[in-house]
Amino acid sequence: MLPEINQALLHLVDSIFPDRQSELNQIFLYHLGLDDKSNDQGKRIRPLLVSICAKGAGCDWRKALPAAVALEILHNFSLIHDDIEDNGQIRRGQPAVWMRWGLAEGLNAGDAMFAAGFEALSALRISFSSEIVLDAVRLFSATSLRLTEGQHMDIGFEKQQKIGIEEYYKMIGGKTAALLAACCQMGALLAGRGTDTQQTYHLFGHNLGMAFQVYDDWLGIWGNQQETGKSTSGDLVEGKKTLPVLIGLQQSERFAERLTQGAIQPDETEQLAHWLHEDGVEASVKNSFQKWSDETQHALSGLDCEAESKSALAELVQILIERKK
Amino acid sequence: MLPEINQALLHLVDSIFPDRQSELNQIFLYHLGLDDKSNDQGKRIRPLLVSICAKGAGCDWRKALPAAVALEILHNFSLIHDDIEDNGQIRRGQPAVWMRWGLAEGLNAGDAMFAAGFEALSALRISFSSEIVLDAVRLFSATSLRLTEGQHMDIGFEKQQKIGIEEYYKMIGGKTAALLAACCQMGALLAGRGTDTQQTYHLFGHNLGMAFQVYDDWLGIWGNQQETGKSTSGDLVEGKKTLPVLIGLQQSERFAERLTQGAIQPDETEQLAHWLHEDGVEASVKNSFQKWSDETQHALSGLDCEAESKSALAELVQILIERKK
Repeated sequence: MLPEINQALLHLVDSIFPDRQSELNQIFLYHLGLDDKSNDQGKRIRPLLVSICAKGAGCDWRKALPAAVALEILHNFSLIHDDIEDNGQIRRGQPAVWMRWGLAEGLNAGDAMFAAGFEALSALRISFSSEIVLDAVRLFSATSLRLTEGQHMDIGFEKQQKIGIEEYYKMIGGKTAALLAACCQMGALLAGRGTDTQQTYHLFGHNLGMAFQVYDDWLGIWGNQQETGKSTSGDLVEGKKTLPVLIGLQQSERFAERLTQGAIQPDETEQLAHWLHEDGVEASVKNSFQKWSDETQHALSGLDCEAESKSALAELVQILIERKK
Repeated sequence: MLPEINQALLHLVDSIFPDRQSELNQIFLYHLGLDDKSNDQGKRIRPLLVSICAKGAGCDWRKALPAAVALEILHNFSLIHDDIEDNGQIRRGQPAVWMRWGLAEGLNAGDAMFAAGFEALSALRISFSSEIVLDAVRLFSATSLRLTEGQHMDIGFEKQQKIGIEEYYKMIGGKTAALLAACCQMGALLAGRGTDTQQTYHLFGHNLGMAFQVYDDWLGIWGNQQETGKSTSGDLVEGKKTLPVLIGLQQSERFAERLTQGAIQPDETEQLAHWLHEDGVEASVKNSFQKWSDETQHALSGLDCEAESKSALAELVQILIERKK
């Protein structure tokens, strides 16, 4: 499916900005990893989820491509703006869009990409009833809103002292899981399934997103630099309020004490990661991951989904949350 | 119509963020001028255009309210981001959203407002066929893209030395006129008019937007501070590439010479405005305005539109492009 997804993405960009020399065309292809120089396009997890779920729920996945493209575009739009908001300078091994083209251009290109997501959806009209397309548009806009609400909470976390685990789950529920949930639901929706079945696909994507984010947070402290491509414990240096940090503030006095004393330096991260391990924080994070991972498997096994696609989903789950712990 | 438009806006914000205490609800109401303290909501030109054109083309304007609200929301989203991109610190006499809540929050709140525009449109399903609602969504997303293309050109102008008048028209065609054109077209579209009639409404809005922007550019150099609420010649100090500046660079050697010598100070603006007047630049700007103003009147008179609404449109044109010159 991947080559056709990339082809559909390229086709969308060229149809919106027909001039390959135009800067917006170039920014889009650069950020989507579709220009000549790029080698990292991201994993295309979201369009794959749409395509596999559409197929599994009984829909020609090629007809669903505009929705797969739209959700990948939505994801990439959010990355462009997140990098500005979080001062993220590198994205997939290259300068982030706003670093390369400037803040004003980057912000505006993100807006253009957001609009392009809705433009992509309009191509669904070729293959689906107007009712279904409108439901797809609604799912898309409601998901966009959930993303901004999650991001709003995440930004707010930086100023807050005490953040409960439930609050954290709510934040990643919007910031990460809502999009994966929407991808899976979109597949079932386009296959003409009723809201009950759509909801089971939604729940599978939600649980997967939660497990994925908790795993990502674990990687941010204890991950192997060579495997993740990020610097080990980089999350600590950047002062991110990830799950290990939130649990650490509650469970590890020495870690909490250290955090009150200002920014963490790169040469301290190994010691701090060790403290968090010794004080049982890593075990708590693993517990959380195990919970969401089990919920994902449970939701997957109950899915009304054709067998080959279900295997493909199981494979995707493994790729996303490889248990290298 | 205005009270009902404001009520519909308020209703949308409350339905998206039901908690009045939530920060996103507060940011929305603050920026839309709907909180208790605000006195300047902007002119609500865009939702008025939608409502009047819908009525004039034969549609119950109250049924069109979700579209009127959506286009006002789209306009306001673009203002939030424009203020970040242009370093605009004051909006309608109050601190801009990003100045008050910070860049990350402001950027994200803008994204939320963009998404809210699409959410607003979904309420059209109550009163219109799915086909018409999909056409409305498509008009909305295509217009959003045009806005970002116009903004992209505007940002690019800052780095360019030579900018032709045609290029300038193309830029304001996207940045300003596309939205007014979409408002007028939206009215005809919802009234079930065919594409030819929609196009005449579109053209009227486009010409109005062009005249409005050229007039706004004139005000930016020669406007009366008390009437505009902006500082006279503020555009010169901010280094904006408005129409008088572009024509000045071609037509006034002393003005062009001065611009090569760095940023313009507030105490120089009166002299520069006088040079531009003496060297015939103001006359050229007035000519351009006259051209677009005539085109607007011409398009209006040819509009297939019920008489009372046509008078209302004529009144709105007068308010937007009062000839105080």
